[in-house]
Amino acid sequence: MIQKLFGERIQNLRKQIGLSQEKFALQINMDRTYYASVEAGRRNISIRNIQKISEGLGVSLSELFRGF
Amino acid sequence: MIQKLFGERIQNLRKQIGLSQEKFALQINMDRTYYASVEAGRRNISIRNIQKISEGLGVSLSELFRGF
Repeated sequence: MIQKLFGERIQNLRKQIGLSQEKFALQINMDRTYYASVEAGRRNISIRNIQKISEGLGVSLSELFRGF
Repeated sequence: MIQKLFGERIQNLRKQIGLSQEKFALQINMDRTYYASVEAGRRNISIRNIQKISEGLGVSLSELFRGF
């Protein structure tokens, strides 16, 4: 469940900055297939990868988890 | 670095609720050696384990990451 919520959250934020999954994954140096599976809620992602995504999205971790 | 910050944060919150590492780990059904290594900043912890800890501490994820 947390994986699903997290995936939806980062998908929304990524769309707000107007990047495709591919471009965003490339920008943060993350495998695009892995990144897509995180957005889909299928990964028990680690804190270091969470941080990498938050930096790419330009939000703090506290903002990323707002409402969680 | 994020691992260290996270470890310090959960250690502070655990002490606020007055539980030892052992008792807290037992309460959240997490191996106490693993939990101790998370507090020490040595684990790239996953989102599901982060959630388990936040629930045990009685704080939301957004509160857990406040200031991060």
